Amino acid sequence: MDINVYLPASYDAGKIHATPVLIYLAGLTCSPANGAEKAFFQPYADKYGFAVVYPDTSPRGAGIDGEDENWDFGTGAGFYCDATTEKYKDHYRMYSYINEELPVLLAEKFAGLDFDTVSLTGHSMGGYGALAIYLKNAGKYKSVSAFAPISNPSNCPWGEKCFGGYLGDDRAAWLEYDPTVLIKKYDGPVAPILIHQGLADAFHYRDNQLQPENFLKASEESKFKGKVSVNLVEKFDHSYFFIASFAKEHAEHHAKYLGLVGPSL
Amino acid sequence: MDINVYLPASYDAGKIHATPVLIYLAGLTCSPANGAEKAFFQPYADKYGFAVVYPDTSPRGAGIDGEDENWDFGTGAGFYCDATTEKYKDHYRMYSYINEELPVLLAEKFAGLDFDTVSLTGHSMGGYGALAIYLKNAGKYKSVSAFAPISNPSNCPWGEKCFGGYLGDDRAAWLEYDPTVLIKKYDGPVAPILIHQGLADAFHYRDNQLQPENFLKASEESKFKGKVSVNLVEKFDHSYFFIASFAKEHAEHHAKYLGLVGPSL
Repeated sequence: MDINVYLPASYDAGKIHATPVLIYLAGLTCSPANGAEKAFFQPYADKYGFAVVYPDTSPRGAGIDGEDENWDFGTGAGFYCDATTEKYKDHYRMYSYINEELPVLLAEKFAGLDFDTVSLTGHSMGGYGALAIYLKNAGKYKSVSAFAPISNPSNCPWGEKCFGGYLGDDRAAWLEYDPTVLIKKYDGPVAPILIHQGLADAFHYRDNQLQPENFLKASEESKFKGKVSVNLVEKFDHSYFFIASFAKEHAEHHAKYLGLVGPSL
Repeated sequence: MDINVYLPASYDAGKIHATPVLIYLAGLTCSPANGAEKAFFQPYADKYGFAVVYPDTSPRGAGIDGEDENWDFGTGAGFYCDATTEKYKDHYRMYSYINEELPVLLAEKFAGLDFDTVSLTGHSMGGYGALAIYLKNAGKYKSVSAFAPISNPSNCPWGEKCFGGYLGDDRAAWLEYDPTVLIKKYDGPVAPILIHQGLADAFHYRDNQLQPENFLKASEESKFKGKVSVNLVEKFDHSYFFIASFAKEHAEHHAKYLGLVGPSL
């Protein structure tokens, strides 16, 4: 698996487990390059002193018949779940990769990183991934944020296609990854959740793929009541310009919960 | 001509001519998107309060036979000069476009921009363009900087190909655009010139296309003696990661000469 890692200026391999980590999960079609090249987290990673990890969005070249036929399923579209269908279950295990395998591998390579102090963010499919992984692992991650997340994937075309292909027809299995379902049964420590959604994002207003309002509504029946902030921003679409424009706010948010700034920020 | 413009948060169309401008000239093959998406100037543009203008690197679709056959000549490779050869002289006038036409057009569209307070930066071919335009127009621009500039184009393969194609065989005409020649006869106001060059940049160490050392040496016989800083940085190549990594230093440099920070910076 390819990966990009940004180490802040303050990173010191000799300071064992000293540098917190923000994991950025990218969206459909993306590689580790998109976030590293265009999301603009690095200036703030430097300012606050956290590393940024940019994983890939699926296995590559698994050799599964049909995996390269769609831009929104298979290669580039691993959907941050562990597949159970016969065709995909051996290779498409992005949930375990992000949540378990990757931190161990990176900790071996970069001794200065602190994988007990990790937050999650992501865009679109990656925004869903960040929310799902955070909510499925109460207390493991310090905070989560998302840019235009697929907030209710069991209830939109992208989610139906990917969950159907990776998890099969039993919709009960899909709900185990759906942030809008997961938040209601979450029972761990609560940090505010920061979400931005562009109002010129056609995947939102035209295609109904994102539905952050469903997530917000569900949060009102959860421990996160009053703690989920969905910022609807005019004129912004689904592009990386949108992410880059609000990277500062998300970085400040995570810096606070990663213990890198005082509460007065 | 396509163009990208970043207006800082402080931009106010009602404050006529209040916002200084940094023009970013991109390298061979680039469009206005490369710098806007990957050079990371925007966070610092916001901090200091200058706009960033990202022009294209050539005309597009001029319909000249052969203009699309090379990645380093013709489309995407206008080389910031005014062509005089029969085939190219009607359309390939990037020098006049950047230096004269574009500021007038942008001032009409964005009344808040101050085109009397402009600085130049650029990468590779665009680094050459920034240096050449600055040195050919003494006093017009407040400062110039460059990332891995083609510093002595009359003396390297890229320059020989482009100058030959756009200006013809008379090398005397080439020298009118060569920063390493121009700096020696410059007789205007002097602001320090900031240059970064990656030592893992194959165009530098393998192909001899960049030659910032020639420019530095020439500066010692000029009004810029002691004022040109060529920072050789280990491990960096020719990519936008290199630019993004030093965008902060270049932005601070220009902010100072654009009058946006005190001399204590």
